[in-house]
Amino acid sequence: MTRPYRIDCLQYANWSHEIFRQMRAGAVDAVHVTIAYHENFRETVLNIEQWNRWFETYDDLIMMARTGDDVRRARETNRTAIFFGFQNPSPIEDDIGLVEIVHTLGARFMQLTYNNQSLLATGCYEADDTGLTRMGREVVTEMNRVGLVVDMSHSGERSTLEAIEHSARPIAITHANAAFWQPALRNKSDHVLRALGESGGMLGFSMYPHHLKGKSDCTLESFCGMIAKTAELMGAERLGIGSDLCQDQPDSVVEWMRVGRWTKRIDYGEGSASDAGFPPMPSWFNDNRDFANIEAGLRAVGFSDSETAGIMGENWLRFFDEGFGGR
Amino acid sequence: MTRPYRIDCLQYANWSHEIFRQMRAGAVDAVHVTIAYHENFRETVLNIEQWNRWFETYDDLIMMARTGDDVRRARETNRTAIFFGFQNPSPIEDDIGLVEIVHTLGARFMQLTYNNQSLLATGCYEADDTGLTRMGREVVTEMNRVGLVVDMSHSGERSTLEAIEHSARPIAITHANAAFWQPALRNKSDHVLRALGESGGMLGFSMYPHHLKGKSDCTLESFCGMIAKTAELMGAERLGIGSDLCQDQPDSVVEWMRVGRWTKRIDYGEGSASDAGFPPMPSWFNDNRDFANIEAGLRAVGFSDSETAGIMGENWLRFFDEGFGGR
Repeated sequence: MTRPYRIDCLQYANWSHEIFRQMRAGAVDAVHVTIAYHENFRETVLNIEQWNRWFETYDDLIMMARTGDDVRRARETNRTAIFFGFQNPSPIEDDIGLVEIVHTLGARFMQLTYNNQSLLATGCYEADDTGLTRMGREVVTEMNRVGLVVDMSHSGERSTLEAIEHSARPIAITHANAAFWQPALRNKSDHVLRALGESGGMLGFSMYPHHLKGKSDCTLESFCGMIAKTAELMGAERLGIGSDLCQDQPDSVVEWMRVGRWTKRIDYGEGSASDAGFPPMPSWFNDNRDFANIEAGLRAVGFSDSETAGIMGENWLRFFDEGFGGR
Repeated sequence: MTRPYRIDCLQYANWSHEIFRQMRAGAVDAVHVTIAYHENFRETVLNIEQWNRWFETYDDLIMMARTGDDVRRARETNRTAIFFGFQNPSPIEDDIGLVEIVHTLGARFMQLTYNNQSLLATGCYEADDTGLTRMGREVVTEMNRVGLVVDMSHSGERSTLEAIEHSARPIAITHANAAFWQPALRNKSDHVLRALGESGGMLGFSMYPHHLKGKSDCTLESFCGMIAKTAELMGAERLGIGSDLCQDQPDSVVEWMRVGRWTKRIDYGEGSASDAGFPPMPSWFNDNRDFANIEAGLRAVGFSDSETAGIMGENWLRFFDEGFGGR
């Protein structure tokens, strides 16, 4: 039997030949990579240009991907399929016409907010969440039309629920965990998780330490136990991995992620003045070669072969097949 | 027998529902439309956004096209396939990475110059033609890689010859005529035409009056006679139509085409102070419904059925099949 697909639905590493080799060593068939945090349209295009150079240079290891079938093609040619996504809607600026443009350029996920209020919705760190804005509703409809998936990983509760409700197609929370396990602002309530599951959406579990119980000291058993409890809320077929791996990034990058150009002061986000940089990863997940640990951890908490295969990649692949085409 | 394909490899009309209906009435299977004269990258994207709205609104008449097979799909669904092109390299600004980006967004032809010196080559109105620049050579190589066709319609003689020589793939002159017939700066010498034909390139004949012998009074017989003589130089299989139809445009547009933002004064281009606007089209070609006149004219000067079919569209379709894919 062919081994199941292995997909990571969120990484933002300091990409390099070494990391692309590790993807192959870890048998990772597809990765959703963040290509914009606060970048405007033109800056995002520069980031795509950089990826185009990597696709040319490392065409034995990675390939640009647009559809679920590209994941299958990547596996047939022993490569990792790369999908683009934005953690903020800044690449579309104030222009709904850019939704189709960025989809044509390869974007497949876009968060409606990154922690703060955006033109579209409210981020999870704002005091008041006013839900989808007028433009937010229009943009979600346009994203539905072209096949750009709504990602609410960094959004507030009301905005997330309204996105699930308003979107004609299932949405994703590509990288977050359950708040019942670790009550971080970035993790999601039972109410959100249930609504997400019932609407056919997907949750990707994050290994970013600030989203973990016990942070960097979180055990694999605890993490997989949380996944098992979340499966009871949503169904195992709605679950996947979105590691939030930020490998080899200097701490200046986490500052850019948090601060962008929206403040002149430092904002520590999920960190603090005494813990300002990237936190150390848990011992059982350091890079793309460690997915086998998670797979073993899922089996250890009682997931069946097919449930484990689903969470490790098959569920995302089905979601890609359904979510990325135009309507 | 299926009728041969009918393709116009250059139009810049004031697009409207009416014109799209005329394309269908004229059984035009594909049109290469100019979407940038002097626009920078972001402005070009705005023009693509406008086209995306037309593709949505008039999806019973037109469709976005990227390959020769899209022309076949357009015919099967009774629509006109639309290919994007630039008359100037301004959309790629000073950034070679934008070549692949604009190709991904659908651009299939790019002129290296529009009358003036560009970053890449020399236009046909400059006093001295210094040929391809350093960046010009790099960009042609990149255009060859991604499948963006080099178009030298508005370039100087030396630049055109160097583009033919340097390009690893056949180039096009999408809209110009033979200088032996009408010695306009925009028309091409026997030397260029021979080199173009020998390299597998294509010439599209223009009905823009300034490129015609007798201008607006040019007869169909004279025009088709010129095509017959050009076939002796290049071979009939290297010839097509690039009408340069600028239907329904106000004269402010011809001023933008000529002046862009490169001068504060008026430049009359091929016109003059007393003849500043768009010239009237010849009586036998006013819009997309008049291609049958040209077809009849070609037969009248002695072209065979298959030669006529080639010039009216089959030659361009073959060129699209070979030219638009990546390498």
